Amino acid sequence: MIKSPWTLPAAAIALALSAPAFAQDAAALAQARDAALADTVALDFVEDLTTEVGPRQGGTEAEARARDWAVARLRAMGFANVRAEPFMMPTWVRGEERASIIAPYRQPLPITALGNSGATPAAGMEGEVIGFRSLAEFDAAPDSAIRGKIVYIGHAMRATQDGSSYGAFGPVRFNGPDRAARRGAAAIVIRSVGTDSHRNPHTGNTNFGEGVTPIPAGAISNPDADNLERMLDRATSPVRMRLLLTPRNMGQQPSGNVIAEIPGSDPSAGVVVAACHLDSWDLGTGAIDDGAGCAIIAAAAKRVEAMGQPRRTIRLLMAGAEEVGVWGGRAYGEAHGAEHHAAALESDFGAGRIWRVDFRLPGAASALSDRIATALAPIGIARGREAASGGADIGALARLGVPLIDLQQDGSDYFNLHHTPDDTFDKIVPADLAQNVAAWTVTLALLANAPETLDREAP
Amino acid sequence: MIKSPWTLPAAAIALALSAPAFAQDAAALAQARDAALADTVALDFVEDLTTEVGPRQGGTEAEARARDWAVARLRAMGFANVRAEPFMMPTWVRGEERASIIAPYRQPLPITALGNSGATPAAGMEGEVIGFRSLAEFDAAPDSAIRGKIVYIGHAMRATQDGSSYGAFGPVRFNGPDRAARRGAAAIVIRSVGTDSHRNPHTGNTNFGEGVTPIPAGAISNPDADNLERMLDRATSPVRMRLLLTPRNMGQQPSGNVIAEIPGSDPSAGVVVAACHLDSWDLGTGAIDDGAGCAIIAAAAKRVEAMGQPRRTIRLLMAGAEEVGVWGGRAYGEAHGAEHHAAALESDFGAGRIWRVDFRLPGAASALSDRIATALAPIGIARGREAASGGADIGALARLGVPLIDLQQDGSDYFNLHHTPDDTFDKIVPADLAQNVAAWTVTLALLANAPETLDREAP
Repeated sequence: MIKSPWTLPAAAIALALSAPAFAQDAAALAQARDAALADTVALDFVEDLTTEVGPRQGGTEAEARARDWAVARLRAMGFANVRAEPFMMPTWVRGEERASIIAPYRQPLPITALGNSGATPAAGMEGEVIGFRSLAEFDAAPDSAIRGKIVYIGHAMRATQDGSSYGAFGPVRFNGPDRAARRGAAAIVIRSVGTDSHRNPHTGNTNFGEGVTPIPAGAISNPDADNLERMLDRATSPVRMRLLLTPRNMGQQPSGNVIAEIPGSDPSAGVVVAACHLDSWDLGTGAIDDGAGCAIIAAAAKRVEAMGQPRRTIRLLMAGAEEVGVWGGRAYGEAHGAEHHAAALESDFGAGRIWRVDFRLPGAASALSDRIATALAPIGIARGREAASGGADIGALARLGVPLIDLQQDGSDYFNLHHTPDDTFDKIVPADLAQNVAAWTVTLALLANAPETLDREAP
Repeated sequence: MIKSPWTLPAAAIALALSAPAFAQDAAALAQARDAALADTVALDFVEDLTTEVGPRQGGTEAEARARDWAVARLRAMGFANVRAEPFMMPTWVRGEERASIIAPYRQPLPITALGNSGATPAAGMEGEVIGFRSLAEFDAAPDSAIRGKIVYIGHAMRATQDGSSYGAFGPVRFNGPDRAARRGAAAIVIRSVGTDSHRNPHTGNTNFGEGVTPIPAGAISNPDADNLERMLDRATSPVRMRLLLTPRNMGQQPSGNVIAEIPGSDPSAGVVVAACHLDSWDLGTGAIDDGAGCAIIAAAAKRVEAMGQPRRTIRLLMAGAEEVGVWGGRAYGEAHGAEHHAAALESDFGAGRIWRVDFRLPGAASALSDRIATALAPIGIARGREAASGGADIGALARLGVPLIDLQQDGSDYFNLHHTPDDTFDKIVPADLAQNVAAWTVTLALLANAPETLDREAP
């Protein structure tokens, strides 16, 4: 028989929780969680950020405006110790971008440069396209087929709830350009690492290894990749492309992290870091990547504060320059890695409902993970079996062994929007965003008040 | 009690039809209809057209390539009297297009010029934005509020199955620019006449009246229109836009219609015209608008021919330059309007399933409409109560009183794609396209073989 939770009085729920020190607050916690399901603070945050700032690429003046905006907003929300922590970083910016097939057919192909792409000559370039359906097929081809050509590489990415297809198919973008450059290709064009059918190519960083001269590297949309593959299949003479990409390297430019805190009552208990990244790619307005994440952690932290001063300090890390190389996460690790971090969490996978929670807590804190999982279950969140791994901006902390919790968002739609112009405010479902705030409220409240000792362990 | 059609023997279905002269073929017709549900000829047609030609704006060399492609394809399919019928037309082509908000916020706004837009100076222009939520709100504003400004006009279009929202909200595009120009606006930017949430603005023709100097006129996507409206709502100082649109008028350029026929056995019975348009807007590859329409009529006509020589000639009209002013339909009317047209039909509303059939037949042919409606019902097509009105390219024939049938397609998604880069092959659902071929096969077969007299009546 299934007992509906609402048939139990609040006191019974409280008693069912396993940590006596916090048990008396379980009813208050449930109430705070359910109140957060009607949250509008997060929605307002991301609406305002995307309207008043919009795109904010790391290292640009737009990101500086976003920092100013965030500092002002977090102060207005009543956070303590609000500040920007500046750092410098190498900055690449997009230029003109155009491509077209010129033989044996003639069609434009909307294209976008990948971050760190090399530039074509200012007048553009032309070349023969050699096509591969996958990175593995490219790897298996002889150098002689690749040298001097414009390499096209496709893939078969499909949407997954947990986003795992990004790891599986992302290497076409992460590694394809470097490998093509090493093998003498003139340029590379990839099928966007994305799952939508709109003609907005997906940008994103690529990286060329030490000593490898970047070649022009762009992405085309799925419909255009389909079209190009059809051309390659049927053409009886070489398929030729005209390509213009004129990105520039701006050298070292200023970026920065934005920090805000809710001070805890027990400095010896360590800091709970809730992270997101404030920068976005330049093509969209950065609503789901990662305006939503910053909105969720800010709204949830305020709700925890409203329940009474927490034992541990909750520190928001709104990292700079994540998309373009995790420069903010690295800077945070260098500046703060030695501090006592009780736990770290990041929200950086859109605005979809949280469906799973994963933990990487010290063994002595296993009861805490039970309490968190129990408090999250009523809003549809299942306990996962994987170890939490954190997000990019808390990677430095994760590597140090800091305890982690992953509140896993539903990413079924994420790679329809990720790194495209379509990453805009209208894509956020308000009820889903509020469910995130509810889950974060529960998790931060239990983490910040846990009587257990939370500290790093050898990872 | 509902009797499933498949419980009746074919002979019984044949007897149930009301026209004795054709009744003996009803089983064959049902068989041809159901076989067409597995049609692949239409899908191949539109795949090949969009791959090998792609965008084909009226009056451009791309449209000339499309004509050559269509003539070759229709000959290869075995049509008779395949030819291009050339005409000249005034031609407008897109140039550079960029917009951004520069105060009090700073964001790029992807924009596309409307057909016949005027140009900004080559270096662009800047101006204050005055915003209206609807054309009615614009009309109600005083000239003093509009003069010298960049006018923004929004609307509240929602998707409808029958496409009626285009008529209701389209005037923002059709008439807004002319009205803004007459009232002294410096430029106009409209919310795209579309129902999607992607950042691909919808182009489409606008028209400036006699003696009105065209002003720069562009459309922004729904997400950008939402964003601009939020800015207009909250800004405490003027919202300023930078705008660059550099379209050009190329003067008179060659276009043409492509004609193909299945000759009938009885020249005195008149010609059945099945129309589509071969040109497309330049932003997409013209898969749904209107490659699909041309594919459907060509595939269906061949299926009718395979049933035996029809009584009436079936003439395909693949019109040129529809999008940019219905120049092909006008040229056809001038060249062929005096001929005996038994009926005219057009497929130009995408590739969605046909859900309704409407008629405008002479009173003496009412039994024919019953036969057609009966034969269409098994594939989910209901008889409508409206009089058929035809499509743009047969408008000249409709005005002459030529009998019409509308095979109405489901347009629920049509204005997500219409006139955008997203009008691409992948958007076509093969089974839906085949259902169109089945409905057209039935309709053309019954029309072409009807014993009734079909001729124009005073409209």
